[in-house]
Amino acid sequence: MGGFFGTIQKKRCVEELFYGIDYQSHLGTKRGGMATYSKETGGFKRSIHNLESTYFRTKFEDELPKFFGEQGIGVISDTDAQPLLMNSHLGRFAIVTVARINNAEEIAHKLLAENMVLSEFSSGRINPTELIGLLIIKGKDFVSGIENVYKNVQGSCSMLILTEDGIIAARDFWGRTPIVVGQRKDTDGNIEAMAVTSETTAFPNLGFEISHFIGPGEIVRLTADGMQQLRKPENQMQVCSFLWIYYGFPTSIYEGKNVEEMRYQTGFAMGEEDDTEIDCVGGIPDSGIGMAVGYAAGHHVPFQRAISKYTPTWPRSFMPTSQETRNLVAKMKLIPNESMLKGKRCLFCDDSIVRGTQLRENTKILKELGAKEVHMRIACPPLIWGCPFINFSASKNVLELITRRVIEDFESGRTKATQLSDVSGGTKGDNVCEMEISDERLHQYAQTGSPEYEAMVAEIAKRLNLDSLRFTKIEDIIEAIGLPKCKICTHCFDGSSSHTINNF
Amino acid sequence: MGGFFGTIQKKRCVEELFYGIDYQSHLGTKRGGMATYSKETGGFKRSIHNLESTYFRTKFEDELPKFFGEQGIGVISDTDAQPLLMNSHLGRFAIVTVARINNAEEIAHKLLAENMVLSEFSSGRINPTELIGLLIIKGKDFVSGIENVYKNVQGSCSMLILTEDGIIAARDFWGRTPIVVGQRKDTDGNIEAMAVTSETTAFPNLGFEISHFIGPGEIVRLTADGMQQLRKPENQMQVCSFLWIYYGFPTSIYEGKNVEEMRYQTGFAMGEEDDTEIDCVGGIPDSGIGMAVGYAAGHHVPFQRAISKYTPTWPRSFMPTSQETRNLVAKMKLIPNESMLKGKRCLFCDDSIVRGTQLRENTKILKELGAKEVHMRIACPPLIWGCPFINFSASKNVLELITRRVIEDFESGRTKATQLSDVSGGTKGDNVCEMEISDERLHQYAQTGSPEYEAMVAEIAKRLNLDSLRFTKIEDIIEAIGLPKCKICTHCFDGSSSHTINNF
Amino acid sequence: MGGFFGTIQKKRCVEELFYGIDYQSHLGTKRGGMATYSKETGGFKRSIHNLESTYFRTKFEDELPKFFGEQGIGVISDTDAQPLLMNSHLGRFAIVTVARINNAEEIAHKLLAENMVLSEFSSGRINPTELIGLLIIKGKDFVSGIENVYKNVQGSCSMLILTEDGIIAARDFWGRTPIVVGQRKDTDGNIEAMAVTSETTAFPNLGFEISHFIGPGEIVRLTADGMQQLRKPENQMQVCSFLWIYYGFPTSIYEGKNVEEMRYQTGFAMGEEDDTEIDCVGGIPDSGIGMAVGYAAGHHVPFQRAISKYTPTWPRSFMPTSQETRNLVAKMKLIPNESMLKGKRCLFCDDSIVRGTQLRENTKILKELGAKEVHMRIACPPLIWGCPFINFSASKNVLELITRRVIEDFESGRTKATQLSDVSGGTKGDNVCEMEISDERLHQYAQTGSPEYEAMVAEIAKRLNLDSLRFTKIEDIIEAIGLPKCKICTHCFDGSSSHTINNF
Amino acid sequence: MGGFFGTIQKKRCVEELFYGIDYQSHLGTKRGGMATYSKETGGFKRSIHNLESTYFRTKFEDELPKFFGEQGIGVISDTDAQPLLMNSHLGRFAIVTVARINNAEEIAHKLLAENMVLSEFSSGRINPTELIGLLIIKGKDFVSGIENVYKNVQGSCSMLILTEDGIIAARDFWGRTPIVVGQRKDTDGNIEAMAVTSETTAFPNLGFEISHFIGPGEIVRLTADGMQQLRKPENQMQVCSFLWIYYGFPTSIYEGKNVEEMRYQTGFAMGEEDDTEIDCVGGIPDSGIGMAVGYAAGHHVPFQRAISKYTPTWPRSFMPTSQETRNLVAKMKLIPNESMLKGKRCLFCDDSIVRGTQLRENTKILKELGAKEVHMRIACPPLIWGCPFINFSASKNVLELITRRVIEDFESGRTKATQLSDVSGGTKGDNVCEMEISDERLHQYAQTGSPEYEAMVAEIAKRLNLDSLRFTKIEDIIEAIGLPKCKICTHCFDGSSSHTINNF
Repeated sequence: MGGFFGTIQKKRCVEELFYGIDYQSHLGTKRGGMATYSKETGGFKRSIHNLESTYFRTKFEDELPKFFGEQGIGVISDTDAQPLLMNSHLGRFAIVTVARINNAEEIAHKLLAENMVLSEFSSGRINPTELIGLLIIKGKDFVSGIENVYKNVQGSCSMLILTEDGIIAARDFWGRTPIVVGQRKDTDGNIEAMAVTSETTAFPNLGFEISHFIGPGEIVRLTADGMQQLRKPENQMQVCSFLWIYYGFPTSIYEGKNVEEMRYQTGFAMGEEDDTEIDCVGGIPDSGIGMAVGYAAGHHVPFQRAISKYTPTWPRSFMPTSQETRNLVAKMKLIPNESMLKGKRCLFCDDSIVRGTQLRENTKILKELGAKEVHMRIACPPLIWGCPFINFSASKNVLELITRRVIEDFESGRTKATQLSDVSGGTKGDNVCEMEISDERLHQYAQTGSPEYEAMVAEIAKRLNLDSLRFTKIEDIIEAIGLPKCKICTHCFDGSSSHTINNF
Repeated sequence: MGGFFGTIQKKRCVEELFYGIDYQSHLGTKRGGMATYSKETGGFKRSIHNLESTYFRTKFEDELPKFFGEQGIGVISDTDAQPLLMNSHLGRFAIVTVARINNAEEIAHKLLAENMVLSEFSSGRINPTELIGLLIIKGKDFVSGIENVYKNVQGSCSMLILTEDGIIAARDFWGRTPIVVGQRKDTDGNIEAMAVTSETTAFPNLGFEISHFIGPGEIVRLTADGMQQLRKPENQMQVCSFLWIYYGFPTSIYEGKNVEEMRYQTGFAMGEEDDTEIDCVGGIPDSGIGMAVGYAAGHHVPFQRAISKYTPTWPRSFMPTSQETRNLVAKMKLIPNESMLKGKRCLFCDDSIVRGTQLRENTKILKELGAKEVHMRIACPPLIWGCPFINFSASKNVLELITRRVIEDFESGRTKATQLSDVSGGTKGDNVCEMEISDERLHQYAQTGSPEYEAMVAEIAKRLNLDSLRFTKIEDIIEAIGLPKCKICTHCFDGSSSHTINNF
Repeated sequence: MGGFFGTIQKKRCVEELFYGIDYQSHLGTKRGGMATYSKETGGFKRSIHNLESTYFRTKFEDELPKFFGEQGIGVISDTDAQPLLMNSHLGRFAIVTVARINNAEEIAHKLLAENMVLSEFSSGRINPTELIGLLIIKGKDFVSGIENVYKNVQGSCSMLILTEDGIIAARDFWGRTPIVVGQRKDTDGNIEAMAVTSETTAFPNLGFEISHFIGPGEIVRLTADGMQQLRKPENQMQVCSFLWIYYGFPTSIYEGKNVEEMRYQTGFAMGEEDDTEIDCVGGIPDSGIGMAVGYAAGHHVPFQRAISKYTPTWPRSFMPTSQETRNLVAKMKLIPNESMLKGKRCLFCDDSIVRGTQLRENTKILKELGAKEVHMRIACPPLIWGCPFINFSASKNVLELITRRVIEDFESGRTKATQLSDVSGGTKGDNVCEMEISDERLHQYAQTGSPEYEAMVAEIAKRLNLDSLRFTKIEDIIEAIGLPKCKICTHCFDGSSSHTINNF
Repeated sequence: MGGFFGTIQKKRCVEELFYGIDYQSHLGTKRGGMATYSKETGGFKRSIHNLESTYFRTKFEDELPKFFGEQGIGVISDTDAQPLLMNSHLGRFAIVTVARINNAEEIAHKLLAENMVLSEFSSGRINPTELIGLLIIKGKDFVSGIENVYKNVQGSCSMLILTEDGIIAARDFWGRTPIVVGQRKDTDGNIEAMAVTSETTAFPNLGFEISHFIGPGEIVRLTADGMQQLRKPENQMQVCSFLWIYYGFPTSIYEGKNVEEMRYQTGFAMGEEDDTEIDCVGGIPDSGIGMAVGYAAGHHVPFQRAISKYTPTWPRSFMPTSQETRNLVAKMKLIPNESMLKGKRCLFCDDSIVRGTQLRENTKILKELGAKEVHMRIACPPLIWGCPFINFSASKNVLELITRRVIEDFESGRTKATQLSDVSGGTKGDNVCEMEISDERLHQYAQTGSPEYEAMVAEIAKRLNLDSLRFTKIEDIIEAIGLPKCKICTHCFDGSSSHTINNF
């Protein structure tokens, strides 16, 4: 996905900017960048580093003395190199985005025909941030330029723009990705600094308190004195539910709802109504722990850490792109605790099941180490639809989803819903589906409690060798988040947001 | 402290060695090194890197292709550069140690007088591993050489020696630091690889199972086929209790007892008998969490993560040497979760209290964010004596301990035990004690439940602005570890191991 | 100045491209870059490194395996980051330039008003190559785009463009900077590779022979089979005479005339007519040596190396930007040879005198080491006018020229032409002139043999403590180059090219 | 070979030490190191870097601020890592050597048997400097320790020792490698700094003047005030003649004789008596130029640079160890100047002929580029014996010498002395000799003017396709150096120093 941070202050902002960006590190793994502007010298300073084999802090710490200025923005990007610098009729600016553009080729084609230039293509692909910058420049001012982005981009796009007159923040038209504004007051109660962030986790240690959750399509400008609204928010919203389930750091807050609390409540609700007899509950680090803690409380069994993540050297939550390395990292970073497993009926919570490969491997190891039973509880419903809105890395290919493979095996008759099957039995070698399933039929599988749903869940449990498996219901997620259903995107569970693919 | 790992196999061992060493990363922050030997080429290969601003994996990953061989050792060191290579009448060998030598100057002086040479002094200090190597070479064989180390070193010393005929592992004469042997069998049930480690956390993901806990003073030799005892273990033992309380990764096992289990039991025991009314329990990451989880279960209140560690970029548990940076890291790495604190009576578990500075700061922030009450439970008794045995970094200067400062204030009359006082009130500006307190008097303060103990604890709670404070009793630690009291070193709590300072 | 190289072949071109660019290293010190294109994969690959403290080879050698393709271009740049990549209605291309744009601000302003974007401004200044790329894109095809550059740019601009259909080379409209085309034939006599370069020094070791000197304003396209002319050359020319005097590597050829030969002839001519009695002749490394060798032959005295450059670690001819470091480098890289100086009447040749500071310092050292006399012969006339055409680094500020300071001192009456004076005596502290001198008066000083010229040269010799000083006459330079006077730019000596500042 | 530098001053010496070491860069390519000592803090600081792919300056420049102290030593080593630090009964010291030890295994064996330790063997070989340090420590003081080195080492050894009481310099017992002492006086005429160096090239730019050429076996101690003799020099000497011919930088002086002067005289002498008709003379850079300049003067033909070395990026004179890379570097670094070759009868001077491969290749290229004739003059006699005294890299394997291959072909009858043959014709494929030739017979080939000598030279000329070839006579070298024949080692030309292999 990626995350960004910006701040504008009355004094040098570089070090705070650096820490603020660093706190987005769990959202991206590819590129890190920061740009600052000094009103005094009139100069911009920008730096970008590859983060695929190192950390933002390691790369940028030594460069900080070279930065200057009272305002800056930065990003941990999961895709392209950012921030970009642009000099245009709107003046000079730097821009960072959290975006996905499905129709990039089409937009690029249109822009080139209008004599515009794309300079960022050495990675072999179009840089989405550059496209967004060019769309903005086509406007007569920043607001009309950003509306140009809203109108043309299929996918999603939130952005920060560092101008010579403050920082402009513009949230995705449907509010799929979040932006939160914070302020810090001096001892006299006057605002001394403003900040804007993807993750509010960046605020407490820098002394900021949340002052505004930017709405869908809303555009604001930050100065060192406060915030000014440039465009009103839309009424509708489709904020991504996976922010709470998977992406967010436990201490972050979106739309007023804290991530850890949401996870705890989801777990608590399931724990309360679940009647499985178990000895202990654990979470798959990191994102499964919040739910597990809640589940333990709701189910009145002890939370225990039967699996630990070796954080001293495997700190990052996200994984490298090569599948082979992903598998190795997945194996090496989690360490099972034999002493707490032996002879126990263990229940684990995890955020989601994508391909299921790793979970099946984990279950096997847990049983080999002596676990009597292994039960799994998942923080969301089964993933059935791909995400066309944000770069949800886990579901790159919808046809690799374990749900889809099970459904195909059912529909093709390769697997009878009632028959026993091992995980590879019913599936073809390459683990990628090929059969076309009607959307109507998929909805039947997605319907909690339907015969298709029950057969699918049972089959997944069998294939993963689990003693039991349950998924959280959409309703429980909605309730835990606390927004109306219509404002939350649950597309990957129920395919409900297809109509929003064309903005505006 | 530091940790080491070695393995000898029938095939190339480099990659497994690398991961095995990496899993010691929580034990040291200064130097990382590895050495391998190839029987075929007869060559040793060694590399050492500074880890003060980067990670073992980052530094060594690119070098792996240059390494070769079927046997190797490595270390994450908290002090000196290791492994050292030595060519001697015992043949060529590489050596790593987990050691502290109190009488290094004296030993060095003796060795120089015998025409021996010390070559590692560019850091301005004697390299303990070099001293140990020279003491070994003075023996007619490795066993008599290692006994030479046992006889001469005041402090402690465990070591691995990579020879041309296998890996020799020798545990400290009093067993203060651990060494555990693991084996891996092929599908026919034959041993295909042996490993030896400070932390058994290194075993499960590399496929090793524990085959032997090396005893105090015991010496063994590993070959690819198994283990051979070169010297029987001593009967006495003084294994460090802080291994379980503070140093160990949750999944590690010493003397048959798992770290997380020990912490859980300690917490459970205290939770059960504690009658404080609270809303939730949390742990100060990382080492306080195991206890908190147990306390929650014993006390029947939910475990909740009201403080999170930002592991994506602050992965390491240990801290940099500059106090200023330590303070910054301490502040930035822990993120309070306002949503889970507001209006709550919170209880937190932590491993120990050293100077108390950071804890006082944390308490202040938690209350500012809305916590109604802040209670603290500590996984061990008050630290009153310094550790002369291992390099326990937390208590570099015994006179900086908050206990000592409180005791001095009591004894000098600066603080009346019954009077209210703030943390700095009774203490002199430099926060370092100057008064000589008799050992007898210190023992009175160390005695759980004595009037002096109660006054001291109450005074610490006051100074740290805590609503309540309790320390774990020595007896509960002993019980949780499960060894006889006489085999566990609890010197920093009760000064009981002074008589063992001279080995043999 | 900067230099570029490109090649297009029937097989992988990466390694040859790398060496070809490396051979431009004496022309620039700031940035090095290369870009390649593979017809097969359709991909561009680009990399740019800062060369201010390291070498092109060091930076790029490890990256070569990541490059691919059969055609590529690269540059050693003395100014901005290159090559730039651009995707436009002309297709995708990479571009490198050897350029100086005096009216960059004005062009940028015009482009921004037309909704174009400048993205390269993090260095705080406009990137000339980006401007040139945008001017090209405004054309309907490459040729009309490049003519757009010719029309708009005040200064000079030669360029290489790597397109999907071959490499386009376009020489500066006035031919101020050179481009030479080379070809390589296979054993059957068929062309197997084409190359294009600033310096023909890149050709012999890569097996290319010169096939065409691109003319002023000429545009050609190279394919692997040969060269196609896209625009005819202009008749007029103003090729920079400093290419032979100072910039070029001895083995390079421009307009058919070899650098070393030109220097030798210049020296020979002066040596022949000079009647100074001396014992030996030496050159100030590197660019003074060619002239010295010729002078020795013409004057019938031995050439001797009484000063050596310590090339093992001071390889580069050009200097760092900080004046302090320039001075240190200037001091450390040249080593006087006391044994060859003592008691001798030495004559040295150097390329030019700019500020004179370093030469004065050298003379002082030579005399201290025992040289009986120190005579100096300069490879060009006195520098009196600044260069508005190429980035001639030596004369950044025309008012720092020693000629100008002497002229000002004469004209202001501070120095009498006949009076003795030391170098700082007549000049004000900051060594920068402030007085306006009429162009007519400057021409009188520039006129070889005029009373003003003689007085100026005598005064410079006095200030530098030289026993005699002579400058080469313009006519001798013209003759040595072998082109008509009207085709050679000698502006810095005689101010003769002012009328060409506006192109086309 | 390697070179070292040391200095002791009344103020911080670090920067001067750094430049002084840097000026040894032409003597080695493998490791660079420096060590300093501060009397005030009592601390040693040491650093060593690999120089195989970078330069001393690049590696050490950034580290300088971490160094401290008023005295220091350093080295550019062609073999092992240096300086070594040793703490012993002689106190702490750092040591650097320019040494070759033929009997290293034997010495190591003896030392290990005496319970001494060798710690530097990770490179797979014994570190000669460590052996030397251990031999010194076996002495009761430094002088007797160094005599221990003189007695035991077969080969050669000069050294600098940085002690807590000044710098000790000890020259090889036979004086094969040089050490020169320099002093610098303040404006009052008092000594303010002393320095000691392999190459006096390091002196002029640091302000030192030569005060003493250390004699064979002589030992001195430097303090900031001056020099004190600890051991008198021997009368005999065997200083290496290749110092002047090949190793030395032109500005260096050994035994009072300047390198460039010696080369010039050698060339002049040959030029005077040579009657070959030629058009110009050039030198093969770098070491052939001095001779060429002299030859031109003696022969009354112009010196011209028909071949240039591309110093901007190929600065180092010595070559990498891989033969393939050596060949590539050899090809790429020298650039022929076609314009100066075409139709000319060219004569080139070079330092020596080893295997002849490169020279044959160069001749071929020169002729292809149009040279009418190519004559070669060599600065020394034919190399016939290997060097057992210093690490003369060029003759690693005596049987690869072109002389030996020609001699073998003659002696075996494969080549008739009178018959025409091409270079590979008479020789077996692997270009390594296999036949045993008696020493007596070799002496006949070595004898200038003997029939065997003439046949051998003629055959080499044929194989290298040269129009003529002449070698300098031993007598001319002796005369140019200016020492008695008995004091100069000319072993590789006449096998005359075999009796000195056992020292003392």
